[in-house]
Amino acid sequence: MYARKRVVIIGGGFGGIQLAKSLKNSEFDVLLIDKNNFHTFQPLLYQVATSGLEPGSIAYPIRRVFRKISNVKFRMAEVKNILTDQSKIETSVGLIHYDYLVIATGSSTNYFNFDSKKGKLLSLKSVVEALDIRSFIMENLEKAMLTRSITEQQELINVAIVGGGPAGIEMAGALAEMKKWVLPKDYPDIDFTQMQIHLFEASDRLLGAMSPLASKAAKKHLEKLDVVVELNTMVEDYDGARLKIKGKEDFISETVIWTAGVKGNIPHGLSEEIVAPGNRIKVDDFNKVLGYDNVYAIGDVSANINDETPRGLPMLAPVSMQQGLHLAKNLMAIQKGKNPKKFEYKDKGSMATIGRKKAVVDLPSISFQGTFAWFVWMLIHLLSLVGFRNKLVTLVDWIQNYFNYDRPLGLIIRRYKRKD
Amino acid sequence: MYARKRVVIIGGGFGGIQLAKSLKNSEFDVLLIDKNNFHTFQPLLYQVATSGLEPGSIAYPIRRVFRKISNVKFRMAEVKNILTDQSKIETSVGLIHYDYLVIATGSSTNYFNFDSKKGKLLSLKSVVEALDIRSFIMENLEKAMLTRSITEQQELINVAIVGGGPAGIEMAGALAEMKKWVLPKDYPDIDFTQMQIHLFEASDRLLGAMSPLASKAAKKHLEKLDVVVELNTMVEDYDGARLKIKGKEDFISETVIWTAGVKGNIPHGLSEEIVAPGNRIKVDDFNKVLGYDNVYAIGDVSANINDETPRGLPMLAPVSMQQGLHLAKNLMAIQKGKNPKKFEYKDKGSMATIGRKKAVVDLPSISFQGTFAWFVWMLIHLLSLVGFRNKLVTLVDWIQNYFNYDRPLGLIIRRYKRKD
Repeated sequence: MYARKRVVIIGGGFGGIQLAKSLKNSEFDVLLIDKNNFHTFQPLLYQVATSGLEPGSIAYPIRRVFRKISNVKFRMAEVKNILTDQSKIETSVGLIHYDYLVIATGSSTNYFNFDSKKGKLLSLKSVVEALDIRSFIMENLEKAMLTRSITEQQELINVAIVGGGPAGIEMAGALAEMKKWVLPKDYPDIDFTQMQIHLFEASDRLLGAMSPLASKAAKKHLEKLDVVVELNTMVEDYDGARLKIKGKEDFISETVIWTAGVKGNIPHGLSEEIVAPGNRIKVDDFNKVLGYDNVYAIGDVSANINDETPRGLPMLAPVSMQQGLHLAKNLMAIQKGKNPKKFEYKDKGSMATIGRKKAVVDLPSISFQGTFAWFVWMLIHLLSLVGFRNKLVTLVDWIQNYFNYDRPLGLIIRRYKRKD
Repeated sequence: MYARKRVVIIGGGFGGIQLAKSLKNSEFDVLLIDKNNFHTFQPLLYQVATSGLEPGSIAYPIRRVFRKISNVKFRMAEVKNILTDQSKIETSVGLIHYDYLVIATGSSTNYFNFDSKKGKLLSLKSVVEALDIRSFIMENLEKAMLTRSITEQQELINVAIVGGGPAGIEMAGALAEMKKWVLPKDYPDIDFTQMQIHLFEASDRLLGAMSPLASKAAKKHLEKLDVVVELNTMVEDYDGARLKIKGKEDFISETVIWTAGVKGNIPHGLSEEIVAPGNRIKVDDFNKVLGYDNVYAIGDVSANINDETPRGLPMLAPVSMQQGLHLAKNLMAIQKGKNPKKFEYKDKGSMATIGRKKAVVDLPSISFQGTFAWFVWMLIHLLSLVGFRNKLVTLVDWIQNYFNYDRPLGLIIRRYKRKD
């Protein structure tokens, strides 16, 4: 009897979903595992955090993606350990055997030397975290209504963002627009000219992974929106209210959003030799984990360290998706006795938005900024959302936002209590 | 100097919002207080619980309602005590003085003799509770995928609804439709013909407050959808898995949704003499609380007990809204030295929906059921939602639901842990 081989994929992010979809109707039985029952469109999390979109618009039930794909199954489970010698994984729902294992577990916030303070910082890597940021900011605004002391108000309404990558500048831009157009309407007793939004970046430019033109435009746009951009600036300490800055004055704020870095989520059970800088898994040109025969890694958690990419590929959705598609083809080739092909990343460009009619786009051959870039950004993100309903509701919210200079959703549904 | 008098309203439900809106540009300073920063459109909570709508579609930020009304302010606060002798209320944000106090605190679930078991029951009176029901049901479906035992599966997927009022039958209908059209697509390994949905009602008909025609149609429609309707049936005990039924076989289910009754939320500080049956506040024909000069109560929490209405008016949104509007007029009349008018409820009818193309409508002169009633139900509810954005997004989700026989939102964003 000919037994179908089983591909187990850990992680329902961009890479895992793409891989499972590309194995549709293949000779494999595919099992996709994620700790959530939904896929998160991470690039728009900042809009959930800033009351522009609802979680349901950027999250999509994984089961729904695979409804009509009979060889792909889904399990909501946490992976506890990988037993590579037995080709099994230990999960919260029991032991699961694999013929091929693909680790697509993505990345989480890297607090670096601030790790001991992470309970006091806000992070933006999941839907729950985005909702927590929303609740925390809205609750502090309510508190700020109760005091007449400018100092106390500032502590409650100021926002520090640490890290000038795409997540940081998008968050800063969205908050600056709320400050300008939305909050004064809802909180008439607060003087929002006193509200300071500071963006701290350790290097000498924003959007370090993009072109210098993009960096410059992002800085200019943010400053136009009254965001104070502090380059070459290191944060040193934080006590929940006072952010110490190296060589500069302290910044007073209860709200510090940490977007300064990410690290790979490596599951337990792999040898320590495969750990690359940034806590990523060392893979070869075929995304196979070094030293293992039937274990692969794709997306943020994987890094193919070589002369061309000494730090691995950038941790971006397009990389993960291309790797997912490529690995599917390779697994099917191997199954047919053919040779797998090396993965090559086709950089189709990158982009970030700073706010209304302002975005920066780097294509391989050209960089552009401004209104057209903003339309491109919106179109690409809208088309990338999973499901027609989510595309349509997002469009409704964006149109409303555009014409009313407004953000529809300022609900504190669950309070956020900061850990101390 | 002529000092403006201050009206303090506790509660941002249908009554409180209507009252504050109706006092727009009056001679009063109005302060509206609610523990949430949003108004909840309670009649559609069951659609949030059954993954048909997002919370943001049925909740609306209270501050936004009053943006352009300069004499109405809002505070998010919990009321701890009423000090009627000082005309002050104690809140989580300090003491607040009033000239007129209006209690519009609504109602919450009444567990009657099941009070000691309420930690094991699911309730549907707030957005958080609706999201908890959604998460609990979806998590149990995930668990049911892991067992091959029909008994274990049934315990996880069966649903009991206690109480045959509008909330109970709407919940039962929505769940029955999920069972029929949605769940088999998402959970192919579960045999949903084994899933039982039982609706238990102590009296001899559903929708006791509506016409016998409506009761009969609701029962017929629910039974067509495979809901087992058990009239004249008392639940006796529940241990988290086994629901004991008086004189009948136990019903096995982890999911028991309690919609069997509500009771008024009376704030602390009023005399015990004003408590009417159902924990409501006794008011006179002007909605003034008996025995107090400047304290009023409207909506679910108030009851004008007299020969015509020996149990007070029904606890419905239209009653609250009419009382809010009426009280606003009376307060303005009193302020001008005129006599207040008695409140008279104009019953414009009531309605409930059982599912796709099925609703029951009682108007004062006519009762009708079926597809047209369903369209009326949808139109009324759509128009009653606060805000254009919410109307539009709800319409999008209903259209999608109608044409695809689907429910777009099955996300488990926060796990629900049942208290034991």
